[in-house]
Amino acid sequence: MTSIILLEEVNKHNTEDDSWMVVNGVVWDLTGFAPRHPGGADIIQEYFGRDASKIYNELHGPGLIASQLGEKKRIGVLNKLPTNELSSFESSENASKPTSEKPALQSILNLYEFEELAEKVLSPRAWAYFSGATNDSLTTAMNIDWYRQILFRPRVLTGMKNADSSATILGHKYSIPIFNAPASMAKLAHPDGELALARATAAAGSTIIVPTMSSFSIEEIVEALPPDHPFFFQLYVNRNRSVTEELLRSVCKLKPRAIMVTVDLPVFSKREANERYEIGVAQKQASHDFQEKINNKGKDQARSASNAIESDLQWKDIRWIKETTGVPIFIKGIQCATDAYLAYKNGCAGIYISNHGGRAVDTAPASILTLMEIQANCPEILAEMEVFIDGGVRRGTDVLKAICLGASAVCLGRPFFYALSYGQDGMEHALESQKPIPIIEKQTWLTFA
Amino acid sequence: MTSIILLEEVNKHNTEDDSWMVVNGVVWDLTGFAPRHPGGADIIQEYFGRDASKIYNELHGPGLIASQLGEKKRIGVLNKLPTNELSSFESSENASKPTSEKPALQSILNLYEFEELAEKVLSPRAWAYFSGATNDSLTTAMNIDWYRQILFRPRVLTGMKNADSSATILGHKYSIPIFNAPASMAKLAHPDGELALARATAAAGSTIIVPTMSSFSIEEIVEALPPDHPFFFQLYVNRNRSVTEELLRSVCKLKPRAIMVTVDLPVFSKREANERYEIGVAQKQASHDFQEKINNKGKDQARSASNAIESDLQWKDIRWIKETTGVPIFIKGIQCATDAYLAYKNGCAGIYISNHGGRAVDTAPASILTLMEIQANCPEILAEMEVFIDGGVRRGTDVLKAICLGASAVCLGRPFFYALSYGQDGMEHALESQKPIPIIEKQTWLTFA
Amino acid sequence: MTSIILLEEVNKHNTEDDSWMVVNGVVWDLTGFAPRHPGGADIIQEYFGRDASKIYNELHGPGLIASQLGEKKRIGVLNKLPTNELSSFESSENASKPTSEKPALQSILNLYEFEELAEKVLSPRAWAYFSGATNDSLTTAMNIDWYRQILFRPRVLTGMKNADSSATILGHKYSIPIFNAPASMAKLAHPDGELALARATAAAGSTIIVPTMSSFSIEEIVEALPPDHPFFFQLYVNRNRSVTEELLRSVCKLKPRAIMVTVDLPVFSKREANERYEIGVAQKQASHDFQEKINNKGKDQARSASNAIESDLQWKDIRWIKETTGVPIFIKGIQCATDAYLAYKNGCAGIYISNHGGRAVDTAPASILTLMEIQANCPEILAEMEVFIDGGVRRGTDVLKAICLGASAVCLGRPFFYALSYGQDGMEHALESQKPIPIIEKQTWLTFA
Amino acid sequence: MTSIILLEEVNKHNTEDDSWMVVNGVVWDLTGFAPRHPGGADIIQEYFGRDASKIYNELHGPGLIASQLGEKKRIGVLNKLPTNELSSFESSENASKPTSEKPALQSILNLYEFEELAEKVLSPRAWAYFSGATNDSLTTAMNIDWYRQILFRPRVLTGMKNADSSATILGHKYSIPIFNAPASMAKLAHPDGELALARATAAAGSTIIVPTMSSFSIEEIVEALPPDHPFFFQLYVNRNRSVTEELLRSVCKLKPRAIMVTVDLPVFSKREANERYEIGVAQKQASHDFQEKINNKGKDQARSASNAIESDLQWKDIRWIKETTGVPIFIKGIQCATDAYLAYKNGCAGIYISNHGGRAVDTAPASILTLMEIQANCPEILAEMEVFIDGGVRRGTDVLKAICLGASAVCLGRPFFYALSYGQDGMEHALESQKPIPIIEKQTWLTFA
Repeated sequence: MTSIILLEEVNKHNTEDDSWMVVNGVVWDLTGFAPRHPGGADIIQEYFGRDASKIYNELHGPGLIASQLGEKKRIGVLNKLPTNELSSFESSENASKPTSEKPALQSILNLYEFEELAEKVLSPRAWAYFSGATNDSLTTAMNIDWYRQILFRPRVLTGMKNADSSATILGHKYSIPIFNAPASMAKLAHPDGELALARATAAAGSTIIVPTMSSFSIEEIVEALPPDHPFFFQLYVNRNRSVTEELLRSVCKLKPRAIMVTVDLPVFSKREANERYEIGVAQKQASHDFQEKINNKGKDQARSASNAIESDLQWKDIRWIKETTGVPIFIKGIQCATDAYLAYKNGCAGIYISNHGGRAVDTAPASILTLMEIQANCPEILAEMEVFIDGGVRRGTDVLKAICLGASAVCLGRPFFYALSYGQDGMEHALESQKPIPIIEKQTWLTFA
Repeated sequence: MTSIILLEEVNKHNTEDDSWMVVNGVVWDLTGFAPRHPGGADIIQEYFGRDASKIYNELHGPGLIASQLGEKKRIGVLNKLPTNELSSFESSENASKPTSEKPALQSILNLYEFEELAEKVLSPRAWAYFSGATNDSLTTAMNIDWYRQILFRPRVLTGMKNADSSATILGHKYSIPIFNAPASMAKLAHPDGELALARATAAAGSTIIVPTMSSFSIEEIVEALPPDHPFFFQLYVNRNRSVTEELLRSVCKLKPRAIMVTVDLPVFSKREANERYEIGVAQKQASHDFQEKINNKGKDQARSASNAIESDLQWKDIRWIKETTGVPIFIKGIQCATDAYLAYKNGCAGIYISNHGGRAVDTAPASILTLMEIQANCPEILAEMEVFIDGGVRRGTDVLKAICLGASAVCLGRPFFYALSYGQDGMEHALESQKPIPIIEKQTWLTFA
Repeated sequence: MTSIILLEEVNKHNTEDDSWMVVNGVVWDLTGFAPRHPGGADIIQEYFGRDASKIYNELHGPGLIASQLGEKKRIGVLNKLPTNELSSFESSENASKPTSEKPALQSILNLYEFEELAEKVLSPRAWAYFSGATNDSLTTAMNIDWYRQILFRPRVLTGMKNADSSATILGHKYSIPIFNAPASMAKLAHPDGELALARATAAAGSTIIVPTMSSFSIEEIVEALPPDHPFFFQLYVNRNRSVTEELLRSVCKLKPRAIMVTVDLPVFSKREANERYEIGVAQKQASHDFQEKINNKGKDQARSASNAIESDLQWKDIRWIKETTGVPIFIKGIQCATDAYLAYKNGCAGIYISNHGGRAVDTAPASILTLMEIQANCPEILAEMEVFIDGGVRRGTDVLKAICLGASAVCLGRPFFYALSYGQDGMEHALESQKPIPIIEKQTWLTFA
Repeated sequence: MTSIILLEEVNKHNTEDDSWMVVNGVVWDLTGFAPRHPGGADIIQEYFGRDASKIYNELHGPGLIASQLGEKKRIGVLNKLPTNELSSFESSENASKPTSEKPALQSILNLYEFEELAEKVLSPRAWAYFSGATNDSLTTAMNIDWYRQILFRPRVLTGMKNADSSATILGHKYSIPIFNAPASMAKLAHPDGELALARATAAAGSTIIVPTMSSFSIEEIVEALPPDHPFFFQLYVNRNRSVTEELLRSVCKLKPRAIMVTVDLPVFSKREANERYEIGVAQKQASHDFQEKINNKGKDQARSASNAIESDLQWKDIRWIKETTGVPIFIKGIQCATDAYLAYKNGCAGIYISNHGGRAVDTAPASILTLMEIQANCPEILAEMEVFIDGGVRRGTDVLKAICLGASAVCLGRPFFYALSYGQDGMEHALESQKPIPIIEKQTWLTFA
């Protein structure tokens, strides 16, 4: 039988040792969970003893909390459903614009137009989060720019009959070698979050890379795929290894084809767009007297997500994950040939070349340059491992360039989140725009591969 | 005796197996023609059982249909001449501005000024078609930019008395080595289309390269030249070889000096300017309910022209054309030295270096770079073959650079179409502006050749 | 005794075989002079039988015509002094703004500010003439840009006591190695024209290079210098060698230190700024019916100045000038190392590296690059000959770079004409701004020389 | 007992041989001091016999004059305290905006934002002085730009536990290797001038480099540091060596860790921003008749500061300073590898790579390029000497790049002065923003060091 609980009662459980929180009318006991919260302890502590539905719904799917805490932590239901808060989310300034106020999807011809549009239709918080990078965003700009510096030398009269754009990765054949870059908080772009990503990529003959910090539970996301459809899992290793062990146990039950361990973010980088947004919010909320204190808090929040990520990761941790799970491992965040080689020597099944979309160290090299560095220095590992790459892919020709230079597949981050503002339809349209005329892609493919 | 036919009767013949169409008051039987339509089957099927005069006149000269179908396909005349449609074309928004509303031709000093002007005086459709390229138009920009990176080292005191700007190509001497790049749909720029191009180039001592998809029939175009004036023919090979065979038969009767086979467009590229224009038109025409369906149709139309072009062209097809016609063959669309060499080995008389004005694969190299690549890797073929080049030529100095680097002649596409908005006079003025002071051109010529 | 002549009488002498013209109230017989007119025959023929005072005064000093024609050609005086025309010049739209409407000279800190100002205070004709170059003005821009690409590596602690900025050229010591680039029509910038240039350069311890097409006679200009002050003479060789012979005879009487023969302009280049200006004027003047004819005339005028310049100049002509005059010869317009070497082998005393301020062939290399090419390929001739260079010098550091790279002296064209809009004071201020703090110039000098 | 003196009496002592001046109500005897005035003799002579409080307070701390002249030169006090002048300074247009009118310090996220703000909040004089450079400011721009061209190749999985950002310089350990570039006139940015600089750098575990031309006396500045806190001293050598000897005697009493001798400014460079500002002021003040004379004076003032700096400095002077003081010597202004090597050979303890923030010779190389030149040519001296570098450092990643390339520490000039507009708080915030997230800095550090 479900207990009915008064808000006054909830308010009393507001300490680290005794922490209740209301989410969508359900009262949960969060005692002990804060340090394991993937988004950081700080932000969750702020809501002990309070109703956190609004912020929760912005970032998480409704089932995620039950999946994370388990039914034992469900205390009961609030004596009055906080309907205002739920509905206010949809109409709040934090929400993206509804589809009816956006241009017809068919009039969007490429990913740059999705980006242009996203600035207008996403909430300010979502725009700051998705578009922002580190320091002066130089690496982000280089990611795109370097693709443009690479030229094709198109061959002619070679015969195109058997052109084919499929790619076989770890034994499974995908129709196109294009996946989502596993970024957090997809729900900021659209309420369906990773569910839409899963459905759209699967429909295109590709699949989803599920992120550790997904808005929905991994079980919900995998259910959104067709039965037995393959998928990948991206892992942030927690400072508390037992949290990671537990996570890997539940992930492995779902049989991921590979685990991609992110290693390029030992600490959270300086994301000024985020900080500027949070400071702006703090300044609006705070009374004048508390201004300065709040300002600092704003900055802390923008950085707090990193508390759950291990800073001192080493190769032995990778070997531990491999042995624990028995699943093929990719290293995500490779930024120089030496580390690509070390990944091979440490028994990894693949590498994922990435500078975190320019969100880790600014003035790190464009990721396509890292691929070329590997090709120049240890080309043999390109044959031995799967090679994923993200950062700067905007055109079908960019996909082709990465493949021609030795990649197995490419991943897209920001552009897919911008397309996701239209939900699953947007994602499908974005995937389609990457291969605008299948035959030409196939043709050039064969020519260069 | 000519039959008089009611529109109601025409309306009934609207299927693939029984297709009538009205053009300028004449009823034609198109049954079986759609797949051979150079502009694609889709667009023509839309007009089965209808009066297609308006769209026909935008794109084609009045005699073209008779030339394509033959008199046997003429069913009769409509019982009422559709004068409204014909006149509406001239005044419609699809028409270019009349000459009286344009600046005096003499005040236009160079090809850039023609381009600037063209954006204002051409119809939106024509501007989208001529100015647009593929994806981000990077190759189009590089075509121009690379000419600017190449510097002269002018010599002095060498004596200029015998300077000469003529060029001998396949045994015939032309006053200037400048031709039109054979692009389709010249009538979009001016009602006289290729007729004006032919008259103006011949007047300048050059000649026309007649495109497969000309607005007028090749017979009409050749008649516009002085008697026995040489000309070239550009060929798109149809997926149905018998269509091509028939075309070559009628072309060869006119004795072209060479056939230039386009090989760089196995499929139609992603031309966003075109697509944006067509979607815009579709959105205006469609009622709201059919919006989405129409949108997709818009995109299809923009790409449908490619259906008539063979995707699987190979070197054996080139040899077949050579043997069938006995006419010297150029390969149009050469983009790397290896293929230039293969053209030589396959017995071609020439190559035509081109990236289709940046309209084929985006981020293909600037065409002048391809010429330099050939010069560096197999310079001997520059001596053995005729070498045409287009893409980025805007100044007399650009012509000279291409010649100095080994080309036999240059071709201009967009600039000549912009000039053509003034008809034959505009084309002559454009040709004149390419050699602003004959003597200096000749001088520098000798110096570098 | 002076004849008094009616304008009606003058009007009758309007043919090539019998040509009178009025200038400032004096009637001259110009029969046979037109082909020798340095500014071209066309423009002068237009004024046969007419009063040409207005256009004459814009371009020439009052004494030039007597010097060119000799007293024998003076027919008499007009019966009424054309005072209106003379005064109208001062107030016409062709005049530069008076000094009182310009900013205080002392507030102009560098040559870029003179240029910015010149666009506002010069007449439209003068601005078009001075600022314009050829085609896209790419060489003009490169001239400046390449100086900026060259970096110093300043040394320290070397002792600066004996720093010195003087330069010895052909045995004479000048306080600074900075001269005027000998451009035509100085009077367009200021009524004192070359007189102001001569006085200002001499005052700074430098001197003037007198151009063939000076606004004042060379005798007047040399008189403006201190007694026995050295000077140079720039020569355009006329198609009619006897004209050149006569000119050299009178020049040599004044004992120039060297004759700088311009060889980079066998024909007049395409100067669009000039043509645009002339077409604009023609369009204003002409009635609508004559529009087209006039337009073409506008273009012809802009190019007519070149008719007096020999197109077919060769090294034997240089040797002829050297032998005829016995004066040291410089070749002006050297643009590659081979020709620099040939100048040396042909017994020249110096070279003058120049691309005519980017007014000859566009996309010729920046002149400082030519100097570096010489240094790399035949450095020995830098020691054997005097080396002048113009094009792109805007800062004292640019002067120093040219000297450090092997030049004997630099010349400035446009910047000095812009400064000349303030007359002699402006020129002195410009020279001063080139060596803003004498000591620092001297210091760095020693360091690099 | 203090004498009370009338202004009329002061006015009489207005010659070089008998010079009185009033500062903040005190009458001083300046006879013989002008040539030793660090800011130049000219500017001080203008105030002989007058009250100079206003200009003095803009530039100097109240105690500086007593420290420079000694109590013996104090004549007495003015009979009326010039309170108007003192207060007028605070409210004058020469003052920076008060903190209350500036944005909250916490909302400034990086040094570029400090710069953007400084243009608005500093007085025009201060902005011209701090932001201006020489000629076209090309070196200033290159300083920043070259850091952006240098890319990291981040390593992963190396273990970050013992990361550390401290640096040991001449045996003392500093928490961060970041110091102030010792520029003059800190008081133009904030009334606390170098006192705020000293307190903020010490608080961050770094220290101040005290400039010769400080706004406060060195004794006052050192007192602002914690007891026995180390500091450095920057020396301009005076043309009059006895002035320098006296200065070094008093500095050495305070035990600086090193003396940094500036050698890159033998004469004052052409700082157009300063000149433009001074001319503007002169034009406002002067009556129309004196305009021209005043204009020239404006320029002189902008350059007068250099009169106190020795132009003819040589290595023997460095050895003399070393022997006289017994303190480690750095050469400040090293701009090529040869001079770095000579510094080592002459027994210097360190070099300070600098182009004076682009304020010495324009188009000198970016300072980080000089560091790379040393590394390529004489890397051994990077191990033997301390290497400081300034110019273009704006981000924590820039600091890291300099350290990775061999520097011991970096110095910041303009950015710290802009931050100083908020006083000590601003400086602390600026230092903090350079190491936004301590751990990531430390991490990458270890990786690259």
